[in-house]
Parts: sequence; C-alpha cells; structure tokens
Amino acid sequence: MLVNRDCNILIVGLGLIGGSYAKGLKKLGFHVTALARRQETIDFAIGHDIIDEGSTDINVRLISEADIVVFALYPHVFKEWISKNQQFFKPGAILTDVTGVKSCVVYDIQDMLRDDVEFIAAHPMAGKEVYGVENADEKIFYGANYIIVPTDRNTEGAIEICREIALLLQFGRISTLSPEEHDEMIGFVSQLTHCIAITLMNCSDNENLVDYVGDSFRDLTRIARINENMWSELFLLNKKSLLEEMDRFLAEFKSLRDELAAEDTEGMKQKMRISTERRAWFDKPKRR
Amino acid sequence: MLVNRDCNILIVGLGLIGGSYAKGLKKLGFHVTALARRQETIDFAIGHDIIDEGSTDINVRLISEADIVVFALYPHVFKEWISKNQQFFKPGAILTDVTGVKSCVVYDIQDMLRDDVEFIAAHPMAGKEVYGVENADEKIFYGANYIIVPTDRNTEGAIEICREIALLLQFGRISTLSPEEHDEMIGFVSQLTHCIAITLMNCSDNENLVDYVGDSFRDLTRIARINENMWSELFLLNKKSLLEEMDRFLAEFKSLRDELAAEDTEGMKQKMRISTERRAWFDKPKRR
Repeated sequence: MLVNRDCNILIVGLGLIGGSYAKGLKKLGFHVTALARRQETIDFAIGHDIIDEGSTDINVRLISEADIVVFALYPHVFKEWISKNQQFFKPGAILTDVTGVKSCVVYDIQDMLRDDVEFIAAHPMAGKEVYGVENADEKIFYGANYIIVPTDRNTEGAIEICREIALLLQFGRISTLSPEEHDEMIGFVSQLTHCIAITLMNCSDNENLVDYVGDSFRDLTRIARINENMWSELFLLNKKSLLEEMDRFLAEFKSLRDELAAEDTEGMKQKMRISTERRAWFDKPKRR
Repeated sequence: MLVNRDCNILIVGLGLIGGSYAKGLKKLGFHVTALARRQETIDFAIGHDIIDEGSTDINVRLISEADIVVFALYPHVFKEWISKNQQFFKPGAILTDVTGVKSCVVYDIQDMLRDDVEFIAAHPMAGKEVYGVENADEKIFYGANYIIVPTDRNTEGAIEICREIALLLQFGRISTLSPEEHDEMIGFVSQLTHCIAITLMNCSDNENLVDYVGDSFRDLTRIARINENMWSELFLLNKKSLLEEMDRFLAEFKSLRDELAAEDTEGMKQKMRISTERRAWFDKPKRR
C-alpha cells in the first residue's frame, strides 16, 4: 500500500461526505484533521471521534502537515480555496475530492496547481438525504461505487493512492472515467434521477398523498429532499450533459406515452422487457 | 369484529399477493383455501403452510363453503371468472379483490353479481419485484397503505369486513376512495412511477452502468423489473387517467428542463424547495 498509517489526512469541508471520510479513516488509525467553517462542526467532530484536530481558520500547520488532502466543498468554493491557499501544501502532497461534477473543476485546478503537488479527482457515489457532520457515517460507502477521474496529467502513483483510499473505505466497484465521460454518466444516473424526483413531487399538492403511495412512489421520490444550493450549482455546472440526458429521457418517455395513447400493447411490452432485462444486471453479485 | 376465526376464506389466484394474503390469514388461524391454475402452486402452498386446501378446478365445495373470497387475478380474468362461476357462492358471501385498477372492474362486477352476495373492492399498496406463491410473504403488508374502493351499492358491513381484513394483515393507513378517485391516484403514484422506471432503463444500453450508479438510480429503477403482461393490461385499463398523469409530468419536467437551459437558478431552487417540503411529509410517523 502507498497509503500507510503514518499518513496525515486533512479533510477540507466537514459535511456529510467529508465527515464520513474522516470518520472511516480515523477508525482505521489514520491521523485525521479537518478545516470547517463553524466551530460547532469541529467540536462535534472531535467529541465524536471523527477527527483528531480541526480548525475554522486557514491553519497553516494543519495544511502543511497533510500528506493527503480530501476536498469536500462546493465546486466554486473548492477552486477559490486552491487559488488562495495552495502555497501552504507540503511538497509531494496528494489532493483528491468528492465533487459531483468534474470537467469544470479538474482542468482548472490542475492548471493552477503547483508542480510539486498533484490533484487526482474522484467521485464517491454515495449519499443520504440528510446533511452535516452530525450524520457522518462511513457505512454509506460500504459496497458503493467509486469513480476515479484522472487526466493526462495524473501519475500512476496518485491514481493508486486514490484507489487505496476507496478500498480502505470499503467501496465496492472502483472504476475510471475521463472527466467528460464522468459528467455524461453522472448527468444520467444522478442528476437526471434527481430532476425526476423533484418533478414528481411538484406534480401534486395533495396533502393526503402519503395515505395512498406504495414503495414505488416512496423510492422514486426519496431524493426529492434535496439541498437546493448544492444541486442547482451542480446542475448548472453540468448543464450541457444534463440537458442532453433530460432530452433523451423526454423523448423515450414521450414514446411510451404515445404507445399507450395508440394502445400499442406490443410496443409497451417491448420496453418493459428491455427494462426488466437491463435492471436484472444490477442485482448480480458485486465485483471489485 | 365481523370477521372471526370460524370464517372460511377462499383465495382465487395464488400469485405473490394472493399467496401473501393466504399466508398471513392462515397464520392468524383462519381456514384458508385456494384456487390456482397449476397443481405445483397448490402443492407448494399446502407444503409451506400457506393454505389448508386447494384445487386447480372450479371446486364447487371450496367455493360454496367460503364466507369471504379474495380475488387476486388479472382484471379481465377476474370478470370472466365471476360471470362463469358466481352461481356457486354461498348466500351472504363477501367478495373482495386486490386489483390495481377499479373503475373498469368494480361497476361491471357489481352489475352482473347475484343480489345475495356483495363485492367490495380494495387495493393493497404493496408488492415486490418477484412473482409467484414461492415468494409469498405477509410482511410486505406491514405498515403499507390499503385503499378501500366502495360504490353506492356497498353496505357498511362489507366495508367494515374489508377494513378488518386490512387490520388483521397489519396494513398501516387504511383509506377510502371512489373508483374514479382511486384510478386517478393510482395513475399518479403507481403507474406513472413504473413508466418512469421503464423509461430510465430504456435510455441507456451501457452494460457497465451498474459500475457507476448510486442509490438514487437503483431506487428509481427497482420497479423497472416488471411483469409486462400484467402492467400493459393495467396501463390500458386506466389509459385516460394515466395519460393525464403522464402529460402533467411531461409538462413539469419540461419546465425544469427549460429553467436549466435558461440558467434560471431561482426557478430550479423553488421547485427543489417544494419537493423537499412535500417529501418531508412522507417521513412523519404513520397513523391508522
């Protein structure tokens, strides 16, 4: 392993995901520090064994001692942070992130970054409908997908470190995509699904809905409880890919609608056979 | 209670839902019999303590001994069955069902039915993505919603028996809707969500999708594994309501899409605030 227990790991941004990284890594024996905006966040994290030490300032000592830095910030905050504070990194430090969009972040950061530190982007495909370090839970990563998003400028060593972090946190499948492939994929599997959940809840103001729904409606709208600041930013930053996925979905949905209107039973059945066959793949045993 | 342990209960159609009714009611001490198409179904159900007795024929003794008959058949099969075999019912028998559409079934059956038996429609909002009596599990009903769908021709007594069955099987919220209200509601909360799940899986033939998805995509497509014969029939039988719900969804989705295209952040955030607020209602404690 390139990542060993002597590594100091700094988490920048101690929300649900940053906090869950911290909690999981500290349990494994790493020295974990954090920077957060609010003192209550730091106090909670220290009091609950999530981090060893933390600060609400740009604490030069904590930054310069870190071998690995994990950024769990909003995309625009992340870029600002790097441009202002990169002079404090330890030479040779590896930076990674958990940001949900990549093309608009990765190249800008690699362009501005010092030559003696390296940024390797990653996207842990895990989350919850609650926020903040108070809900940090390393178990959300168990068996989840993890996507490493390297560019031509990344080294094999940094990619391997990123993979080891995923293995240590017990992610399931670990894949590699380019920033462009990542953003297209995430536009489909994550952002489009959130658009659908939001839309479903906007379709009805019936306050008794909860008396009539089954698990299907509950499942399709679980993610309708959404942080509007983060997700509107993510949607805009991936606008091109997301619009393409939304239009593809609209066309497919319209096709099913028109088959129903025309009572084209065979057309509907064919779509159901395809969906059944493809969805069955998801329920096969996981591989690494 | 109107329903007591001396009641003979006949289940007609021993699939997942019929089998789960049988299993739950037999565990409670009722004498439960069943009619099914295949002998293996009957053998399995007897062998696994799901029913006391069963037949693949139109067994006149079993039908005429039943105080309560639960129909768990496809809608068109259900109507045919009643028209052919209703002469065998015990006078005073109460019939109920689990059918997913109501307007096109309830009135026809009440119109053709003998005066000395009563049909009270019901819809248990529970299911699984697997089929058959082999997967029967009365726990799928625990805490689930149950909708009673009476017409002007139903008596208070029959409605109460229907409610008692739901209480015995440990359903959660028990509501009452007219057939028309039911079909509109089910077009929205059940059929529309299945249309969305089917469409999502038809949008991509990427075989590696499973490596990239998070829980959101998994949740939104769980019901994409679908029995195409049953669901295409349900869609067609509720065509008018479902088309209305599909068109409402299309318009709302298009509105979100256009807000993204126009970078109308406030418009998107407003939809997210509405979806968050409405979805939060679902997570309140259940009431009966």
